[in-house]
Amino acid sequence: MTVVEAGKALRDGQISCVELLNECLSTIERLNPDLNAFITVTADSARKRAAELDDEFANGIDRGPLHGIPIAHKDLICTKGHRCTSGSKLFENYMPDYDATVAVRMDDAGAVMTGKTGLHELAYGITSSNPHFGVIRNPHDRDRIPGGSSGGSGVAVATGMVLVASGTDTGGSIRIPASFCGVVGLKPTYGRVSRYGVKPLGPSLDHVGPLTQSVRDAAIALHVMTGYDDRDPSSSRKEMLEYVPPSPCSLAGLRIGMPRNYFFDAVAPDVRAAVERMARLSESLGARVLPVQVPDVEALNVVARTILLAEASAVLESHIAQRDKFGEDVLALLDQGRLVPATDYVNAQRLRRYLVQEWRLIFSAVDCLFTPATPTAAPRIGQKQVELDGEMFDTRLATTRFMRGINVLGLPALCMPCGKTSEGLPIGLQVIGRAWEEHVLLRVGAALEDAS
Amino acid sequence: MTVVEAGKALRDGQISCVELLNECLSTIERLNPDLNAFITVTADSARKRAAELDDEFANGIDRGPLHGIPIAHKDLICTKGHRCTSGSKLFENYMPDYDATVAVRMDDAGAVMTGKTGLHELAYGITSSNPHFGVIRNPHDRDRIPGGSSGGSGVAVATGMVLVASGTDTGGSIRIPASFCGVVGLKPTYGRVSRYGVKPLGPSLDHVGPLTQSVRDAAIALHVMTGYDDRDPSSSRKEMLEYVPPSPCSLAGLRIGMPRNYFFDAVAPDVRAAVERMARLSESLGARVLPVQVPDVEALNVVARTILLAEASAVLESHIAQRDKFGEDVLALLDQGRLVPATDYVNAQRLRRYLVQEWRLIFSAVDCLFTPATPTAAPRIGQKQVELDGEMFDTRLATTRFMRGINVLGLPALCMPCGKTSEGLPIGLQVIGRAWEEHVLLRVGAALEDAS
Repeated sequence: MTVVEAGKALRDGQISCVELLNECLSTIERLNPDLNAFITVTADSARKRAAELDDEFANGIDRGPLHGIPIAHKDLICTKGHRCTSGSKLFENYMPDYDATVAVRMDDAGAVMTGKTGLHELAYGITSSNPHFGVIRNPHDRDRIPGGSSGGSGVAVATGMVLVASGTDTGGSIRIPASFCGVVGLKPTYGRVSRYGVKPLGPSLDHVGPLTQSVRDAAIALHVMTGYDDRDPSSSRKEMLEYVPPSPCSLAGLRIGMPRNYFFDAVAPDVRAAVERMARLSESLGARVLPVQVPDVEALNVVARTILLAEASAVLESHIAQRDKFGEDVLALLDQGRLVPATDYVNAQRLRRYLVQEWRLIFSAVDCLFTPATPTAAPRIGQKQVELDGEMFDTRLATTRFMRGINVLGLPALCMPCGKTSEGLPIGLQVIGRAWEEHVLLRVGAALEDAS
Repeated sequence: MTVVEAGKALRDGQISCVELLNECLSTIERLNPDLNAFITVTADSARKRAAELDDEFANGIDRGPLHGIPIAHKDLICTKGHRCTSGSKLFENYMPDYDATVAVRMDDAGAVMTGKTGLHELAYGITSSNPHFGVIRNPHDRDRIPGGSSGGSGVAVATGMVLVASGTDTGGSIRIPASFCGVVGLKPTYGRVSRYGVKPLGPSLDHVGPLTQSVRDAAIALHVMTGYDDRDPSSSRKEMLEYVPPSPCSLAGLRIGMPRNYFFDAVAPDVRAAVERMARLSESLGARVLPVQVPDVEALNVVARTILLAEASAVLESHIAQRDKFGEDVLALLDQGRLVPATDYVNAQRLRRYLVQEWRLIFSAVDCLFTPATPTAAPRIGQKQVELDGEMFDTRLATTRFMRGINVLGLPALCMPCGKTSEGLPIGLQVIGRAWEEHVLLRVGAALEDAS
């Protein structure tokens, strides 16, 4: 059930907030022992909150589209009185005494927080095979990874454990689990959603956003999450259009760019075919699809790696000496980060400004770009390499290669399901837009969703 | 003659633009061989421009208060067709084919560019004893330094070679020469004046601003220099009040903070006495003077050093291998900068945000702070250490200690003459204000100037 459907059922009296919650809790009870999407389930406080929200409905109080909707937060988003582990041994007993802004906003909108979802250790990786809190499994194939770092959020939404989950995205961490789990994930424009109370990884690359079952649900969730916050120095005052795409949703006049270079090299054939199908479908809905040459993506990716290595090691510097508290992969990255010279970091940030200008030009010719979200569907748990066009690639680098550069640019990017592989695994489409134009991505996504 | 006086004389027909220019050029001719304020004198193009501006006056065209005013630019500000050396052997033959935004703005306002002023090599130091272009001398005592890095600008204004000179300030480089040469120097709020076409040293600390003979002249020059520029990514759209302080200028209602800690430790007695005299004078003009405790300034200074070391080495990285092209002091700093780890730089930038918040609180209780500009008057050329309260301090670190932290905060700071030492050397007062409140500093400065 989507947020839109649940909202209708709640307001039609077909279901109560408590009943809806209980359905979700029983799904969690049934599936979580195997899939391991949640680190903490907050069933008691959720039941209490759902009952309050039923009372509000009874008294004519309606907080809007998230009123009574079961949700979960990635377990690096602080919620008062609930443990917040960041998927790390370092913080296994950390009990925040305050709420992240995004948690407050969703709570005020009537969402029912059912728990905290698992993640790749410290959000620093894409497998969500967590050495401290266990492997998280892909619901489409339990031997495959759900993607990460927001793997628990992807699984929880894909299985209906919740209708909305928050995620964070520093180099693809919302969009990768969306792609691998077959749900919608939206990385907003940098500065759009407050990060106050959200544990940082790479402060100049970190974004907060929603994972949902549909594009319209993502529009609803993003709107609730959004708002200026003076406690996050990067928070923007740019207004968010309160935009839920109409139905039907036309694409007349829209110009979609299909990159000729980079984004379709070293891609699994069924992924490429699925994205091309989405382009043709968009044309049938009135859009124009134009081939475009994008600036050097590897330059973006090198900038992303240099910045993230340095920022993550800086953020975690005081903890690195406790070496037995880290998984092997995360420790290796933290050690690498300590070897980056400041001059490289400063020059990466300087180059970043030029690349932002360069990429801006692309969007004078088109309104958004279509790319594969990930070059393959979900790899197997423990799989170190993926094969593409006969060449072997490191799983992490391959999985992030279409995404991490977008964090450098700060542009909004939507990931949505666009088909299945022959093995029945979800394939993701990435739609990248201009800064502050999430509504364009939502319009495209809703139109495709309606037509698929 | 100040800009205000010259403007009146020009409009009263007592002097023409060409005559005013010729007075300045003959002062340059007389004094520059000894003081070495200019690297390049552009007499021919200046004479042509002055004649054009006389024609404009004759035709009723008046470009405003800088119309016909002889000025100079620090020789790291690009002006088309004139050599721009940055005081460096690396760029001794660099001929820019474009104008810096600040040069265009002053040119459009009718200023007559008489040449390019000398500076500490690459703006990276405070003596202006330049190994490639010669020592610059203090006009109050030719055996003393004029301060730096904008030493030539300070000398040119102090001697009447020009009426306004531009400077840049990364850790005091406008305010130190103002203090040592006995002129007014204004470091505006970060983002106020475009840096497009101005060679960077520490991009997150660099500011452009004016040196002038009076506070009202600084107001006039700053207003001309100011304006949003999309070619400088840090340029702000904040409006600048077009504020030239009235005469007389009351200080009624103004709250001036006198720091109880740090700023009056290790200060020469006559400097301390001069600043305290200014505080009493302000009280007699209606201001309230309040003692304040400021947050840890050494934390600011450490942040400033870490950031500048890294940024300067990053900016100049491709040149450092040409070791014989650098003076000893600059090369030592560049080598140090290459050893800064990115994690230190990132954490310095993170700490910076907290310090900005902390310092903001000070300005809820007061409207500005009075501090000494430099703890001593101008040291001798070649002097490595200064003595304060019986202790020896490195000249560079002592000279910058009240200033470089203000660049970390990005706050505006005015330096103006406030007396003389027993040896007849100028003493500088620093007035620090809230972000975007240059007009408060200008009001204080003008009132003190009128009353002194």
